[in-house]
Parts: sequence; C-alpha cells; structure tokens
Amino acid sequence: MFQAVTKTLSVTSTSPVCRGILLGIRHYCKKTPTKLRVSEALSGADLGANVKVQGWVRSVRPQKANVFLHVNDGSSLQPLQVITGAELSDPSLTFGSAVEVTGILKKSPHKKQPVELEADQINVIGECNPVDFPFKIKERHGLEYIRQFPHLRCRTNAFSSLLRIRSEATTAIHSYFKENDFVQIHTPIITSNDCEGAGELFQVEPSGPDIVEDEYFFSVPTFLTVSGQLHLEVISGAFSRVYTFGPTFRAENSQSRRHLAEFYMVEAEISFTQSIEDLTKVMEDMFKSATEHVLAHCVEDVDLFHKHVTPGHRIEGLKFYILSTLRITYTEAVDILNRSSEKFTFPTDWGCDLKTEHEKYLVKHCGNTPVFVTDYPYDLKPFYARDNQDHPEPIAAILDLLVPGVGELCGGSLREERLDLLSARLEEYLDLRRFGSVPHGGFGLGFERYLQCILGVDNIKDVIPFPRFSHSCLL
Amino acid sequence: MFQAVTKTLSVTSTSPVCRGILLGIRHYCKKTPTKLRVSEALSGADLGANVKVQGWVRSVRPQKANVFLHVNDGSSLQPLQVITGAELSDPSLTFGSAVEVTGILKKSPHKKQPVELEADQINVIGECNPVDFPFKIKERHGLEYIRQFPHLRCRTNAFSSLLRIRSEATTAIHSYFKENDFVQIHTPIITSNDCEGAGELFQVEPSGPDIVEDEYFFSVPTFLTVSGQLHLEVISGAFSRVYTFGPTFRAENSQSRRHLAEFYMVEAEISFTQSIEDLTKVMEDMFKSATEHVLAHCVEDVDLFHKHVTPGHRIEGLKFYILSTLRITYTEAVDILNRSSEKFTFPTDWGCDLKTEHEKYLVKHCGNTPVFVTDYPYDLKPFYARDNQDHPEPIAAILDLLVPGVGELCGGSLREERLDLLSARLEEYLDLRRFGSVPHGGFGLGFERYLQCILGVDNIKDVIPFPRFSHSCLL
Repeated sequence: MFQAVTKTLSVTSTSPVCRGILLGIRHYCKKTPTKLRVSEALSGADLGANVKVQGWVRSVRPQKANVFLHVNDGSSLQPLQVITGAELSDPSLTFGSAVEVTGILKKSPHKKQPVELEADQINVIGECNPVDFPFKIKERHGLEYIRQFPHLRCRTNAFSSLLRIRSEATTAIHSYFKENDFVQIHTPIITSNDCEGAGELFQVEPSGPDIVEDEYFFSVPTFLTVSGQLHLEVISGAFSRVYTFGPTFRAENSQSRRHLAEFYMVEAEISFTQSIEDLTKVMEDMFKSATEHVLAHCVEDVDLFHKHVTPGHRIEGLKFYILSTLRITYTEAVDILNRSSEKFTFPTDWGCDLKTEHEKYLVKHCGNTPVFVTDYPYDLKPFYARDNQDHPEPIAAILDLLVPGVGELCGGSLREERLDLLSARLEEYLDLRRFGSVPHGGFGLGFERYLQCILGVDNIKDVIPFPRFSHSCLL
Repeated sequence: MFQAVTKTLSVTSTSPVCRGILLGIRHYCKKTPTKLRVSEALSGADLGANVKVQGWVRSVRPQKANVFLHVNDGSSLQPLQVITGAELSDPSLTFGSAVEVTGILKKSPHKKQPVELEADQINVIGECNPVDFPFKIKERHGLEYIRQFPHLRCRTNAFSSLLRIRSEATTAIHSYFKENDFVQIHTPIITSNDCEGAGELFQVEPSGPDIVEDEYFFSVPTFLTVSGQLHLEVISGAFSRVYTFGPTFRAENSQSRRHLAEFYMVEAEISFTQSIEDLTKVMEDMFKSATEHVLAHCVEDVDLFHKHVTPGHRIEGLKFYILSTLRITYTEAVDILNRSSEKFTFPTDWGCDLKTEHEKYLVKHCGNTPVFVTDYPYDLKPFYARDNQDHPEPIAAILDLLVPGVGELCGGSLREERLDLLSARLEEYLDLRRFGSVPHGGFGLGFERYLQCILGVDNIKDVIPFPRFSHSCLL
C-alpha cells in the first residue's frame, strides 16, 4: 500500500507481548486490517479487531521489554496508546515522526485510556529529526513560542485543540442560523464601498509588470470589505432573514493583542422588525447555542485551554455565561461607571463612547456575565442606525453585547429604513430604501473575540490559524 | 407594533369575504396573531389560525369584490396568496411594496396553492413606485437585464431561487465534510505566498494619505489568495482530514462568461494516502451528496431554473449525474479526442493540456455524465504534484472532474511528500516536508462552476450574489 515507507519494522522477536499478538491475531492476518482514525479507535467499538492507525508520534517511552507510543491524527485531543515489543523500536521512531501502526485493539488496563493498540507492525512513514524540530517531547510550550512556527504549531496540543474548537464553533453558528431559517449570503470581499466610513482600508489592485498605471482594474478604487452589512441589507430587501460569516479587514497599524488585519465576522440582518428585543434574542440564542455545541462536541479541548493555557478559566464559568445574561441601557452603564471608585483613562460622561476599559468594568460589575447595553446616544454610532424618536434624548436603537475577558463581542442596531430621514445623511444608501423599504436591524459578532471569550485566550493571534497584522504575514 | 406604518387599511365594509372573516375570527381578535414566515404559512400547519405575515408584494390582481395578492418573504419560491375585500386595496398596495398582512389561514379552493390568507388588515410598510421600479409585474426578465440591478435583483424569482440554492449547497458541502470527520480550516485571504506560481495576483496595501511609500504594511508584498492549498497542507501535517471553503481571487483581465475576479472554492487535503482512488471517492461523494441535498431541500427552485432560465435542463438529467460517473485516463481522453470528427481550436497531441472545448467534448462523448480524467503528463501540472514513478511515461497522480456544461469542476492531485524529489523544485515548500512528512493529496472545487453545472447557468456572474470582474465592482 505505502510505497514511500521509509522503514518497516516487523515482529521477529519473541517478546511476551508480541508472541501474544502473533497468537491472538492469526485469523485476522489473512484479511486487510480496518483503517481507523484515532477517535474511532478510542471509541472502543472495534475492540479485538485488527486495525491500522496512521498519525504522528506525540510521545515515545521505551521500557525494558516494550515501547509505549502515543499517536495522534488530529481527530481528537487524546492520543491512542500503542504498545509494542522493544524490538519494533528504531532510531527513526521519534517524537514528531509520522507512523502507520497495525495491530489489535485491546481494552487498556490503565484508567487514563479506554483502549490501546498492541502493534505487530510499525511503519515510519515520515521521519522527524527531534533536534531540528522546534517542539520538544513532554514540554508544554507557551503560545508566544509556538506562534513563531506558523507551519508547525498545529502539531501542538493547544493549537490543535483550538483548530477543532474553531471548526466546531463555525459549524454551530451555521447550524443556529440554518435552524432559524436564515439564508446564508456570501457577501463580497472586494468592494467599492466603505461601509462604516472607517479610514483604515486595504486597497486592492493587480500586481505585476503588465499593469497600466492610472487605470483601476475594476474601473473604480476597490477595497477589502470592513463589513458585509450593506450587502446583507441589499438582500434583506427580499429575504427577511439573512446572514454572512466570513473574513473582514482593517488596515490598522497596531501590534496590540486585540487587533488583526484579517478576522472573521458573523453578521445577520432581520427584516420587518422595529424591536431591539428581536435582535437581542438572536444574538443571545446564537451565543448560547454555539457555546453549548462547543461544550457538547469538544469539552476536552476547551478543558485543555482552561487548565494549561488560560488558568483561572473553568468550564463551570462558561456554563454560567450561557445561563445568565443581563441587560442595561447606556445611561445605566454611565451611572455605574461614574459611581465606581475605579480610575479610568477615558472620560465616562454621558455622550462619551464606552471604551474597552469601561466595557470590562461593566462586565465585572455585573458579576462576570454577558451584558447587553442598549440605547446609545445617536451621535456615537453610524449614520444608518435608527433614530428612536420616542426618547427625549437623541437615542439610537443600538445594542452591544459585552462579555468577560473581551469587552464588546457583538454590536448591532435597528437600521434607519425611512428614506426622508436617511436622505439627509448619505446619498448612496438611498436606493435601498426606495422600493418597498422595511424596518430592519442587524448585528455583527467578532468570531475571534468569541473564541477568546470562551477559551480565555488573551491574544487574538492565538485563535486564528494564520494571523495577519501589521509587519506580519507569515506563509 | 409598527410605528413606521405608512398606510393602515382596515376592514370597514361589509363585502362577503370580509364579513366572513369578521365573524369567523372574533375570538382570535383578542389575542396577538401568530407571526409566520411564508414557508411556515404554506406548510398548512396553522390552518384556521389568526396569523400575521410580512413580505413583499409579487402580484396584485384586483377583481370586482376582492383583491388577490401574492406575498413573498424569501423563505420559499412559492408566494402566499392573500385574498381580501376590494375596500382594503389602496393605490400604495403595488407590485414591489412591503406589506404586513393579518388574517385567517384557510385551505385554498385552488389546486396551485395549499392555503391562502383571508386578510382583515393590510399595512403597507414600505411603498414602491412601480414606474421607477426596474422590474415589472408578470414579466419574466432575463438574467442579463436583472444583472444591471445588483441591489434589487434578489427581488426576482430567478435570483432569489439562486440565493436559496447557493445557501443550501453551502450547507450541504459543510455537512458532507463534517459527517466525514474533516476539520474546517479558515485559510487566510491575505498571503505572502503565490501558491500556483500564477502571475495574476491582486496586491493588497492600505489606502489613504497616511501611507508611507516604499514600506509594506506587512513588511513584505502581500496578495489575495489564489488557493488555500498550501495552508491546508500545513494543517494536514497534524490533521489527517481538513478542508476550507471560501473566496479566492484572480486578477484576470477577462470579460468572459467563465471568469470572476472573486469566486468561492472548496478545497480539501487528505493525509496518509497514496491512492488517487481516495481522492476520487471524496470528490464524487461530495458532488453527489451536495446535489442530493439541494434536490431534497429546494427542488422547486432548481425546477424554476430548468424550466424558465435554462431550458433544456431537467431534474432527471441532474439525477442521472448523481448516479453515473465515468473514469478515464488522460491517455484515453487524448485517444477519444483524436478519433473524433470534431474540429478543435487547440491541439490534441499527447502532452498538450486539455482545454475547455476538449473537456466539454469528452463529457458529451461519455454520455453527458461527470467524467474523472486521471494520470496527466507530469509537465502539464504544478510542481507539487506527485511523480508516479511506476509509469514508463512521466505521469503524475492527478485527477480532474469534468461535468456537463462546465468542463473542469474539480482538480486534484497527490502531493509530492518526498523531500529530496521536491527540493529540486521549490525552496519554500520544503520545511513542510522536513518533520514527519506523509503521503497526502487534495483537490479544489469551483463552487460557482458547481452551481452552473446543476442549474445549467451559462454565465458565472449569475450564480454569485455580487459578481466582481474586470471593470466591474458594483456595490
């Protein structure tokens, strides 16, 4: 099967373990072993079967008569323990090497693992020189250290857990919207719009020698999207529930722990609503259902983070987030800040924007639970937010979701659907309101911030497979 | 509830229909009507209930005593028929306007629809001037025409069907990979790599006046990704099954029906395989399961395309694609082309690449069914394809999936995992092979081409919400 096998180590000795294997599996040897993933092998469904498992060696423990290996293939945090006679060992069977192991799945005598694989053949498929390999056996490397090796950090427990959690959280978010009848829209990456009027845009033009100067490829200047909101609003003129989940961009020249040049955002728009409660409910349900799904599908991975990477965080804390969320208005938030004894860097007068320090204080003040803040002063927020004319103050129908450790996780608003009120503000937005315009609202959730929130990860660069930020685009 | 209601039309007359409603619903009037989406109303589960439906008017048919409306909210192709007394009609109740209708769901006497809504109140939420509105009632506008209105084309049947199909196909592809234990990886959009060595790249730099010339934001030149393959290969060094599904880019200066500057690609990598059969199976299963899912969840939408947009295509044809796929080698393909009486523009000698004209001929020759072509000459394909040294000719382990109407839908290969063979080719690729390298392979599927294939759509711009191509970046 594997023509490229570097080394094939076969059972030739008569060590007790191997004799046992040879006797026990005689009838299996005639048929091809069943190929299993590590997670399948660990499930215990194939106890007694002759199986083949492929993966990377996470530990090697030679003992007198036997060698114990841990093999991992990314399908679960827990590796499969492989036990074999010492004679099957070999200098190339090192930490980091890729192996193919054939043998019998047995119930393990140890409590730590349900099954182990008694190997009668081990092929080293790809060697790995442990001296050159930047990760060392039995060492728990810090996130800062592994971040230096973007092409190898998926080999560590912490980062492979992160990738599984990220994949499951993505699935959960799509499932939530699907179950609630939202249509997924692929909003464009390249756009001629600047949705938020934000200055920090990446411009896009072809590279290379054939490029005609002073002529735009798209005939107009084009940028990487900062938000899919405008495009979702377009579609929400015919679909009452839409969402998008994809990358967005900011050319922010920042090396901070909070900023990426490329990050993922979940955005939703709901038509025929004038109620901020409708938006709150969708945000809250999405947050809860995603977190419940992650806990149901990769609790071991989350636990690894809480135990070894971000101590102080606990699964129980996360379950508490799901159960209890609070709601306060902007005016109440300002009150809380002004009554506190905390020294803030930024002012806390009514009319000032809430900064991260304020957001984190509010979350703490509210008992370390997610907090919705609503009804912001109109002037603080983008032009398209709906002016709630029923307030004496100029209050807009805006809500933010603040979460422990992160601050703002989601931001949303009812959108101004009234042509006359909007026409004073921005010309290009108007055609969307001309033909059957309806009250609608929406929000965006920063997906990396969500992962930081549930895992307690401090640096946003550690929750995305290939981080991009100023002065860094590795790979 | 709706403060922004432009017009509220209430039952005041004593037309037979309205009297019936008023008598029949007296006990309902006391409680808030149930808010239903059009698809929920059509399901018939709420027959007899007092409901509220919100959507856009797709047709208005005034008759002597009654007015018939069709209302759509994007949740299904089929609209909900609303019947009401003529006195509830109003000049603002036009084609394209947004309405909120309250009334009783009744079994419809007509075969075309299972239920209809007998309205006792109709609120026009957003007016739509039918003179200015670019789409006309009862007219079936061509794809070319509606493409001119990127902010409104989602209001047409054809394009809203496309958006539902696109959303379902996306769900289906994610489900396929999830069910088969693949981990989803968000590969980056901005990259310092040029994966395929292709020249047609978009470069990315911040815009604006603060930009320092001669200094790259990321310290190196950066581009929009042309493929997530390299990044998937990185992760496939620790995860034996990974995939990505996201936008990719080509700065191709083409106005053709086949090219977009931004398009979606599904890419997968499978570790520990030296078998082109493994790749074929994943490609084929994904194609079949996605298509089965689309047929199961939006057969009406697909049918609309086949009947009105792309005549000549039939659901039966699509079912046939799912049942039968063929496999031929490149050498057999060249034989078929050389024996044909067709005049081709491009040469068909062994060693020449297959062009779209050849691909389409091969599909037709094989009975209009998907065809896998394998074992291409080594020199035709990228450096990372695996050299199958067991062939007398320099053949690489490559496969393409050709489909009716489109030509190449998927392209894949086993990757060269052997450090020494690769080191002759490209320096930067090497570090991926140094530490526990394993035989692996992968493929990419053009998602828009997939949609063109199942729907029979000729122009790729009609299967993406916001098409980007040279000289065009609308919205």
